[in-house]
Amino acid sequence: MKKTARSRIIGKSRSVRPPIVRSRRTRCLLTHTVLERLMHYYICLSKYDPNIEWISSPHLAVQFRVDDTQVRKDLAVIGVKGRPNAGFRRSQILERIREFLGLGRSLKAVVVGVGRLGGALVAYRDFRELGLEIAGLFDNDPRKIGGSIAGLTILSTDGMKSFIRQRKIRIAILACPVFVAQILAHELVEAGIRAIWNFSPTTLQVPSGVFVRNEHISVGIGEIAYHLLPF
Amino acid sequence: MKKTARSRIIGKSRSVRPPIVRSRRTRCLLTHTVLERLMHYYICLSKYDPNIEWISSPHLAVQFRVDDTQVRKDLAVIGVKGRPNAGFRRSQILERIREFLGLGRSLKAVVVGVGRLGGALVAYRDFRELGLEIAGLFDNDPRKIGGSIAGLTILSTDGMKSFIRQRKIRIAILACPVFVAQILAHELVEAGIRAIWNFSPTTLQVPSGVFVRNEHISVGIGEIAYHLLPF
Repeated sequence: MKKTARSRIIGKSRSVRPPIVRSRRTRCLLTHTVLERLMHYYICLSKYDPNIEWISSPHLAVQFRVDDTQVRKDLAVIGVKGRPNAGFRRSQILERIREFLGLGRSLKAVVVGVGRLGGALVAYRDFRELGLEIAGLFDNDPRKIGGSIAGLTILSTDGMKSFIRQRKIRIAILACPVFVAQILAHELVEAGIRAIWNFSPTTLQVPSGVFVRNEHISVGIGEIAYHLLPF
Repeated sequence: MKKTARSRIIGKSRSVRPPIVRSRRTRCLLTHTVLERLMHYYICLSKYDPNIEWISSPHLAVQFRVDDTQVRKDLAVIGVKGRPNAGFRRSQILERIREFLGLGRSLKAVVVGVGRLGGALVAYRDFRELGLEIAGLFDNDPRKIGGSIAGLTILSTDGMKSFIRQRKIRIAILACPVFVAQILAHELVEAGIRAIWNFSPTTLQVPSGVFVRNEHISVGIGEIAYHLLPF
């Protein structure tokens, strides 16, 4: 069933607009924008009162500041269909998004760079709820090594590669200073990391088989500044 | 000139695709996605060696993992034209993005909720470089009030409204726990805040004149999980 749903999307995504995010596979599937919207729906709906079962698309549209046609399109992509005068079944939306994005599996990650931001990410509660498990913390600052955050000991980056290899970890959260980001990214890839969630404000060069999500927090300033401009 | 450039974009944006982000104005201008890409170009190019003046669109495309046609389209939207066999002038791109998004002005903000994440945001260096100035820190935890981060004293949320009104601050960075986010958002809007940068993992209800940018960090997990799925 999963396979059918996926192959349907390939056509869908192609016909709508050219994809922005390129996956490590040669053909592109869902765009970055669609993935983000699906995840927004998921996070929001999973926090609803469990007694609420039916949700209308205009209700969702208002919540996410998108068109309700867009909501229906997104849900159609993952195979969720509404019922006239009732709307969409919340549990079905959640299940399909979970299945579609692969959220059900255990996602083990290391955090590299445990400064203020790295520390905040380790302690971020929602990660665990979504299946992301922080398995190791690494830093190269001797004053930090040996300390602990959220029950995990901060280890030296010297042992990082063997730690990742032994535990077959595939995800790294990079929150280090810019000047070491590329060197660390290179080491992470060598150790077997296949996805880097990059919080360092720099662009990383990685081999084509590795996915990088750049979380440049400052990007938000542009949108805020723009919306405050007098017209 | 600014006005001409803007009115040109309105048409451009309409013809390309329906906008996702709705501004506080009745008509929509640039989409959330275009704004984010422009900001990514800006942050990246401003960190280049100042001696590099000409940049090609394929070079930019590789940096940002987008199509080079997309890069040229984005730059055309802000009125930057390339020169054959030379590319685009870096200083012109930076100037136009700055002008277009309104980054030149002073953007004063308050940070509400100074936990791990709020603290990390206050200390985030890139904010100041982009013109965002943190003018005040607020928390309702008596153990935090009176403490300081990056030279700023943490104040009680009791005095938040008058602080914002007196200094005519228009931006609030919300990094508080979910259960107080809506109450605080309401107070912020009453005090005159016109843009909320929301880091609390919840959706806020605000009047139509207020812009909210939801920075749900967990959203990234979806994209990472998806790209790690075996195909």
